[in-house]
Amino acid sequence: MKIARFSHDDSISFGVVDEEEHELVLLKADPMFAGYEPTGERVPLAEVKLLAPVIPRSKIVAVGKNYHDHAAEMGGEAPAEPLLFLKPNTSVIGPDDAIVLPAQSERVEHEGELAVVIGRIAKHVAEADADSYIFGYTIANDVTARDLQRRDGQWARAKGFDTFCPLGPVIDTEVDLEHGSIATSVNGERRQEGRLADMVHSIPAIVAYASSVFTLLPGDVILTGTPAGVGPLVAGDVVEVTVSGLGTLSNTVRSA
Amino acid sequence: MKIARFSHDDSISFGVVDEEEHELVLLKADPMFAGYEPTGERVPLAEVKLLAPVIPRSKIVAVGKNYHDHAAEMGGEAPAEPLLFLKPNTSVIGPDDAIVLPAQSERVEHEGELAVVIGRIAKHVAEADADSYIFGYTIANDVTARDLQRRDGQWARAKGFDTFCPLGPVIDTEVDLEHGSIATSVNGERRQEGRLADMVHSIPAIVAYASSVFTLLPGDVILTGTPAGVGPLVAGDVVEVTVSGLGTLSNTVRSA
Repeated sequence: MKIARFSHDDSISFGVVDEEEHELVLLKADPMFAGYEPTGERVPLAEVKLLAPVIPRSKIVAVGKNYHDHAAEMGGEAPAEPLLFLKPNTSVIGPDDAIVLPAQSERVEHEGELAVVIGRIAKHVAEADADSYIFGYTIANDVTARDLQRRDGQWARAKGFDTFCPLGPVIDTEVDLEHGSIATSVNGERRQEGRLADMVHSIPAIVAYASSVFTLLPGDVILTGTPAGVGPLVAGDVVEVTVSGLGTLSNTVRSA
Repeated sequence: MKIARFSHDDSISFGVVDEEEHELVLLKADPMFAGYEPTGERVPLAEVKLLAPVIPRSKIVAVGKNYHDHAAEMGGEAPAEPLLFLKPNTSVIGPDDAIVLPAQSERVEHEGELAVVIGRIAKHVAEADADSYIFGYTIANDVTARDLQRRDGQWARAKGFDTFCPLGPVIDTEVDLEHGSIATSVNGERRQEGRLADMVHSIPAIVAYASSVFTLLPGDVILTGTPAGVGPLVAGDVVEVTVSGLGTLSNTVRSA
């Protein structure tokens, strides 16, 4: 099932995507907390503005260097344990929103990633049980000011600017990721490409590890790392991240 | 004015501290959002359990190496710009709550700090205007797993464990910090001591800088760095951080 969060008629709603009819089946409330109660109303997908499908009330946990080829292009090896960092919820934007290039940076780069959306309070979860804490999956762009990342050492600023965490277009609660692939294009030109199976640390391993550090809350989002091919974004670009089965997250880029 | 958040009679309330009568003047709602509307009720301070005076709905922004003497003891210099990192809201605990030593670390240390509580949405705030975005001040302990901080490079795990951000005991909206001092004791023995005036980056400079990166939301908390003297905590310790005018934040320490 694909869940969208969207604005329509001046209000924000949740809905289930009917892919055959290109419509949204409206829900009474956020299904993460309220289950799937339809209002009886339907809206054409073309008439809504899709929003980030979730705004974490606590945190976005991200994993650095989780594909060997990207770790190599960054000049290192993938770490033995997942390397965690945090992005603030104020960095989240939705599909088609603009990534704003901050004046402080001269080099902002895309990092297309698969994102896990947590559905239940998770603490010290075993790998074998991780699946039952996952509400679904969406797509993320872990936008990064590469120059500031190198200068600061800590990544909070470089990866935490407003607009630096596009999420969407929808949350899929059932997608099969085993044979999935991820690709990032800029202005239609392929830049990044990877197989989800090539992650160094698997999704259950990441959820288990993150939950051994932080209590994960419903709506928390985990970014699972980016494959090789990261590169610069400039004003006017359109950046698209595609994950098989999940669709495409598209964002424009503009100056501050 | 000193604002407390506390539990009493199975509910959570906000109140203004009446220091002469040792009582709390109960408020109808969180004064950060609803102003100061008393319910007419008073409760003796001795009858309540004080809670963290704020749970950030977005983020805790912290500044590393913001006192020269602490930067030196960590083997470096204070950076020219504030070095920002993030702690998640799931790390917050209140006065007298226990700091839990995670099994993953063999060296957990205290870092007593002054904390700024943001009261209004702040983005690209000028240093001269920073004061008007500050709701008040409280005390924090930026608890840190020193071994993991060194091993990971990124500080998210080392500083982000549950219970690693004690806050309290109250928020003071009027305290004069100009001649203020900060001290941290463990089991009654003084470990850290500093003058707030010795911060490398001033509070207005930090608020301005942080707001040039992130949109700061009401309830966001900024930790302003720790002076020299950081050291280990072990199970059974009682750690106290005192800031002149703000009182003392006391926490116990226990194993996981």
